[in-house]
Amino acid sequence: MKMLRSLITTILSAALLLTSTVTFAANWLALPDKPPTPADNPTTPAKVELGKMLFFDPRLSSTGTVSCFSCHNVMEGGDDHRSTSVGVHGQLGGRNAPTVWNAAFLSVQFWDGRAPTLEAQAADPIANPIEMGMKTGLAVDRIKKISGYKPYFDDAFGPDSQVTDVNIAKAIASYERTLITPNSPFDKFVNGDQKALNAQQQRGMQTFADTGCVMCHSGANFSGPALPLGSGFIMRFPTYPNSPYVAQYHLLDDGGKAVQTGKIEDQNMWRVPTLRNLVYTAPYLHNGLVKSLPETVRVMASTQLDKTLTDAQVGDIVAFLQGLTGEFPQQIMPRLPPTPGDMLE
Amino acid sequence: MKMLRSLITTILSAALLLTSTVTFAANWLALPDKPPTPADNPTTPAKVELGKMLFFDPRLSSTGTVSCFSCHNVMEGGDDHRSTSVGVHGQLGGRNAPTVWNAAFLSVQFWDGRAPTLEAQAADPIANPIEMGMKTGLAVDRIKKISGYKPYFDDAFGPDSQVTDVNIAKAIASYERTLITPNSPFDKFVNGDQKALNAQQQRGMQTFADTGCVMCHSGANFSGPALPLGSGFIMRFPTYPNSPYVAQYHLLDDGGKAVQTGKIEDQNMWRVPTLRNLVYTAPYLHNGLVKSLPETVRVMASTQLDKTLTDAQVGDIVAFLQGLTGEFPQQIMPRLPPTPGDMLE
Repeated sequence: MKMLRSLITTILSAALLLTSTVTFAANWLALPDKPPTPADNPTTPAKVELGKMLFFDPRLSSTGTVSCFSCHNVMEGGDDHRSTSVGVHGQLGGRNAPTVWNAAFLSVQFWDGRAPTLEAQAADPIANPIEMGMKTGLAVDRIKKISGYKPYFDDAFGPDSQVTDVNIAKAIASYERTLITPNSPFDKFVNGDQKALNAQQQRGMQTFADTGCVMCHSGANFSGPALPLGSGFIMRFPTYPNSPYVAQYHLLDDGGKAVQTGKIEDQNMWRVPTLRNLVYTAPYLHNGLVKSLPETVRVMASTQLDKTLTDAQVGDIVAFLQGLTGEFPQQIMPRLPPTPGDMLE
Repeated sequence: MKMLRSLITTILSAALLLTSTVTFAANWLALPDKPPTPADNPTTPAKVELGKMLFFDPRLSSTGTVSCFSCHNVMEGGDDHRSTSVGVHGQLGGRNAPTVWNAAFLSVQFWDGRAPTLEAQAADPIANPIEMGMKTGLAVDRIKKISGYKPYFDDAFGPDSQVTDVNIAKAIASYERTLITPNSPFDKFVNGDQKALNAQQQRGMQTFADTGCVMCHSGANFSGPALPLGSGFIMRFPTYPNSPYVAQYHLLDDGGKAVQTGKIEDQNMWRVPTLRNLVYTAPYLHNGLVKSLPETVRVMASTQLDKTLTDAQVGDIVAFLQGLTGEFPQQIMPRLPPTPGDMLE
C-alpha cells in the first residue's frame, strides 16, 4: 500500500511539472449509490439508526454540549461554516471541519489522512481534548449509563452485544455511509442528460480538465481515484511555494501529514478533498482562510498548477463546481434516550 | 391582568397555609392537540417549516456555533441535561434550560415569566451576550445575507415580506407550537383507558393530589390553569424557607422574578413549570442542582408544602410523574440554506 501511494505521488508530481504543456483527458464518473464498506462492518438499518442517534448526541462530549453534528451539520453542508471549529469550553481547533457528506468515498479520513476508515475517524474527536474532550473509557461509561441505548445496541450488534468504543464507532460510521448526495446536475449530465449542465458549466468542465484540476480532483467524488480503504490519495499543497497566495493565506504554516508522522517527506502533504457540494462548505482549504469559491479556484490554480486563470475561466470553473451540488436525502430526526438523574450524581 | 395574578397568588398562598389540614380535588385534563396561539401569528405549515430551519440554525449566534436547538434538544427532552447551559465562547448561563416541549401551553415564558409569548421569548437568547451573543440587528443582517432563506420568508409571510426580527421570532414560535407530546399514559387514563396507569401510578396520582402538589401543578400541562397568554402563573419558591433543602440546594440564591423587576414582592417568585416528560429533563429546578426525580419530589414537598413524604409516597408520585411522558412527534430534519462565501468576508 505504501509503495502504491509513493508510486501515485511520483506519477502525479511528474504530471504536475508538465501541466504547462499538456492537457488532460478526464474520466467523468457519476456518484455511486453506495460507498465502499469494510467487510467487518456491513451497513444495516439498525446500525444506521443507532449511529444517527450517537452522531447527534452531545453527551459524547465532556460538557454534554458538543456532538459530531456540532461541527458536521448534516442539515447544511456537513461542516460548520467556520474557518476552524469550536470544541468544548469554547476551544478553537486548528483545521477547517471537512464535510461528512460523501466522506464515505474517501479512502482515508482527516485532512492529513491519518485515519484509514470512518470507524477510525469517529473515535478521534470524541477523545480529542479540544474537540469533545472525553478521557479514555468515559464515552463508553456514559453511553452505558444511558440505559435507553441498550436495546439499540442489541438490535445493531446482537443481543449479547456490549456498549464498546468499537461498536460506537462502527455505528457512527454506518450512519455516515448513508450521507451520500447523488443526482447533482453533473451526475445527470454524465448519465446522459445533456441539458443538466448549462453551456457555461460545460465550458467550465472542459477548463477544469484542461487546466489540470482533474489530475488530483478525479474520480466520482472529485477526491482522487477510488483506492482501497486505507490507501489515501495524498498530495503536496502548495506545490508551487512561490505563489503569492502561499504567504497571503498562510499555506505553509501547517505541515499537514508531517505534523502527525514527523517525517520530512510528509511535509505539506494533504489528502485531496472532495469538490462536491462546495456551495455549502465555505470557507475553504485546510485552514478555512479562503472565503469564496472563485478565490479558492484562483489559489489552487496558482499554488498547484502555477497558472493564473482569467476571470472568465474562474467563472466557468465555479459554475461547473456549482453543478456538483447533489440531492441531500431526507432524514428523520433521531429520538435520544433520556439522561438518568443518577448518572448526573 | 395584574389584578388576576395577585388574586391567584393570594388564593394559592392561603391554600398553601392550609395544606396540613385539607385535601385537594384535582381536575385532571388530557393535553390538548393544539396550544393557544396569538391572533397575530396563526400557525401555518410555511411558518412552521421556516421556524424549524431557524430553530436549528447556529448562524443565529455570534460564533455560528449555538442554535436554539443547542440548549433545547428536541431530539431528547427539549432541554440540555445540564444544570445551566453553555452559550457562545463556552460561557455559562445562570439558570436551567426549560424544556421547549409543550412550552406553548405556558402563559408566560422563562423561569421568571418575563416574556409574555413564545414570540417574545425567542428573540431574547439570540441577543443575550452569554447565550447566542448577537448585537442588535445582527441576526436580521445575517439571515438576509443567507439568500436561500428569502423564498421561505416569502412563503411564510407573503411575497413582499421582509426578513425582520419580528418575523424570525414569529416563525420560531410557530415551530415551537408544534412541539406537543400528547397521549402519555396519563392522558390515555384520563381519556378512559383504565389500564394506562398501573396501580402504583394511580396511587401516586392520588398522593400527588392529596399532598397538594396539584395546587400549583394543575391543568393539562401541570403548570397551572390555562390563563390567557401573557398572564403568568407565578408562585413563591421556596414557600417554607426553613426547609433544610433551601440551604442544601441554594434555593434563595436567585431572586427569581425580582431580578428582572427589582420589586420586593417579586422576590423568589417563579413561573410554575410543567411536569410533563420529566423523565427526560434531569437535572431539575431553576438552578439545575437537584439531579434525580425522587429527590426533587422530596424537595418540593418540603419547601412548598412543609411536608416530609415517606419513601413509599415519593416512589408512588415518581411513578405517576413517569406516566406523564408523552409521544414525541416524528420530525424531518430541516435543510438549511448555504452560507455565501462573500458573507464571510
